[in-house]
Amino acid sequence: MHNQRLNIGLFGLGVVGKGLLDVLHESGFSDAGIRRICVKDPLKPRAVPRELLTYDAGDILGDPEINVVVETISDPDAAFEIARESMRRGKHVVTANKKMLAAHLPELLEWRDRSDVSLLYESAACGSIPIVRTIDEHFGSEPVEGISGIFNGTSNYILSRMSLEGLDFETALRQAQASGFAEEDPSSDIDGLDAKYKLILLAAHSHGVVAKPDELLYLGIRHIGKADMDFARERGMKIKLLPQCIRSSPHRLAMYVMPALVGADSPFYQVEDEYNGVQLQANFSGHQFFRGRGAGAFPTGSALLSDLGALQGGYRYAYRKHRLNGHTSLDASRLLNVYVRMPGRLHSASLPFEQVTHESLLEDGSRRMLGTISLGALHRQSRQMLREGIFAMQLPDSFEK
Amino acid sequence: MHNQRLNIGLFGLGVVGKGLLDVLHESGFSDAGIRRICVKDPLKPRAVPRELLTYDAGDILGDPEINVVVETISDPDAAFEIARESMRRGKHVVTANKKMLAAHLPELLEWRDRSDVSLLYESAACGSIPIVRTIDEHFGSEPVEGISGIFNGTSNYILSRMSLEGLDFETALRQAQASGFAEEDPSSDIDGLDAKYKLILLAAHSHGVVAKPDELLYLGIRHIGKADMDFARERGMKIKLLPQCIRSSPHRLAMYVMPALVGADSPFYQVEDEYNGVQLQANFSGHQFFRGRGAGAFPTGSALLSDLGALQGGYRYAYRKHRLNGHTSLDASRLLNVYVRMPGRLHSASLPFEQVTHESLLEDGSRRMLGTISLGALHRQSRQMLREGIFAMQLPDSFEK
Repeated sequence: MHNQRLNIGLFGLGVVGKGLLDVLHESGFSDAGIRRICVKDPLKPRAVPRELLTYDAGDILGDPEINVVVETISDPDAAFEIARESMRRGKHVVTANKKMLAAHLPELLEWRDRSDVSLLYESAACGSIPIVRTIDEHFGSEPVEGISGIFNGTSNYILSRMSLEGLDFETALRQAQASGFAEEDPSSDIDGLDAKYKLILLAAHSHGVVAKPDELLYLGIRHIGKADMDFARERGMKIKLLPQCIRSSPHRLAMYVMPALVGADSPFYQVEDEYNGVQLQANFSGHQFFRGRGAGAFPTGSALLSDLGALQGGYRYAYRKHRLNGHTSLDASRLLNVYVRMPGRLHSASLPFEQVTHESLLEDGSRRMLGTISLGALHRQSRQMLREGIFAMQLPDSFEK
Repeated sequence: MHNQRLNIGLFGLGVVGKGLLDVLHESGFSDAGIRRICVKDPLKPRAVPRELLTYDAGDILGDPEINVVVETISDPDAAFEIARESMRRGKHVVTANKKMLAAHLPELLEWRDRSDVSLLYESAACGSIPIVRTIDEHFGSEPVEGISGIFNGTSNYILSRMSLEGLDFETALRQAQASGFAEEDPSSDIDGLDAKYKLILLAAHSHGVVAKPDELLYLGIRHIGKADMDFARERGMKIKLLPQCIRSSPHRLAMYVMPALVGADSPFYQVEDEYNGVQLQANFSGHQFFRGRGAGAFPTGSALLSDLGALQGGYRYAYRKHRLNGHTSLDASRLLNVYVRMPGRLHSASLPFEQVTHESLLEDGSRRMLGTISLGALHRQSRQMLREGIFAMQLPDSFEK
């Protein structure tokens, strides 16, 4: 692959696909060219030459001149078929589809190795932050204790609007949608699913563990309210949606996504709007922090461009940690220090707390509880919590009310 | 080189060399082994097996089994000879010597290409922050507007002690020396030279320009005093030593190192002690920020380990920007908004200001001036300023006294 010209077959021409075209054009990246673009809707007008377009995936998969498939469609099942089939036919794959990757990583890696091609996905996690390759390469041999961050620009944008401008959740969500930072159906972003997929991808490189999506607790910000924002503000703190992967013992990891209360000493305190932030705690280098744009056509296009540059250099993810940490498993027993707010008709017995240290009825009729609960117990209740309108966030270990 | 075992010849067994040994040992990195260590002083006791040691560089350079030379000595001339001779003999080189690299990069790259080996130096800039390879790879094809940061842990540690604890410069320097964050002769760190070498290295990757050390203005913190710290604190700001490379027009760059006044909205405001921070402004991805430990045996060892991992994957810096920006030159005409404090016997005529907007005699007898001055004029006066005890820092463009 070294310095071979990249002939690209592109799937999808939405925000991300279009971003790649713009970025390729403006960067003057001369070692790659788009040979064909496969789109779904023949009726939609497109700002690219007619002869580049096709509606038949076979026109890309069957073209022996195309050596790289860039996949930017949203349907994870179709994306999986495209990625697998491309690699089976000896084409490198660059994909932005985190949901597809999180669900199928082991099988995709088998195909990658069998066909001796590359599978790169910098654009699938944290937008423009060069985090996947940095973890895979730079921290490939250094033991990593923990990784956490703000991985979802949509929910962070909403939380910023709420904390900086005092908007309520619904208004902030509508503003995010109007600004192009939230989709029409924002569930995956606001409920923490999107962040969970990204956490799975990063932890595969940082800790050598490929978790299954069902194994991980995820709680989002759908039920966050004024009382929660006030609670944070009165303490000079902020609420952020934080995916976390923490080594709890040499071979056990606690992995989960939930809102967390962070103070001004946290690097995440100043990550606002659509920005993402990643903190990595490594054994030799200590705390590393990265911040950059987490959403948008150009930032995502930039990550795709970076993957194409890496491909040109013959780069493949090494997944060194897989070799080193083969016998690491998930730890659901970890006790979390939590804040929970639920509708007043519910009671502390609705959640399997280990301990409740504080309980109060609020003016708005809801009930607030502080206490401890195990990660596993919270996981088992999490779908119920979403249905019943319960908001929960993690408190710092050092928290005193 | 792909997955070949690395047989390492190590030069130097000071803090950095010893850090590499520890990090290699603790990481369980099994694809590399230290075959020989060349040190200078035969009388100094060493905590490594006697048979690994040699006092003759030829024992490493002449050993055909050694395929990687890791160079951690401080003498830049000797380091250059070692790096060049190693590459001439077909050995890859990993070096931490920023001064040597900044002075000889073009010639070293010729040897690298002639011998088809790798020359890597992640540990030479910003300690544990994975910045060299990130810029070379991730931003290799994306146009970069500017890069700036806190590249020198020693001076940042001193500034933190002064601003957080109210120490004066001399006391803070002694504390840095006692804590192992400053050398016996701290000149290179506190006068801005070390930061300048690192700026040259990073700009070679981000902007494709290899500046000569003599071409760049560097001003340090040797003459910083209480009046300057008070000036910053009264405005809720901090003073940081900032190397900067800014695109002033499509093919012109302003590159310099000097203290700067930064506000709480700057990402550098919260970078304290021995930490380093890098901000990169790229055309598609926007502002990227990186923070991590900039000094210490383990952080530097971590960067060396990362280079060894990259070597194993066959990695070479691509220097893509060299091809794209071949005709970019330095811009000395840029006007800087500055704060200058000089001994009271001197006058504003001592510096070729374009404009002086404020002048006052301070209680301690020194003279403070605010105004504008060109980068080139400041550069020409900079050695004189160091001799005469003049402190200068850049003010934000938006600064109002």
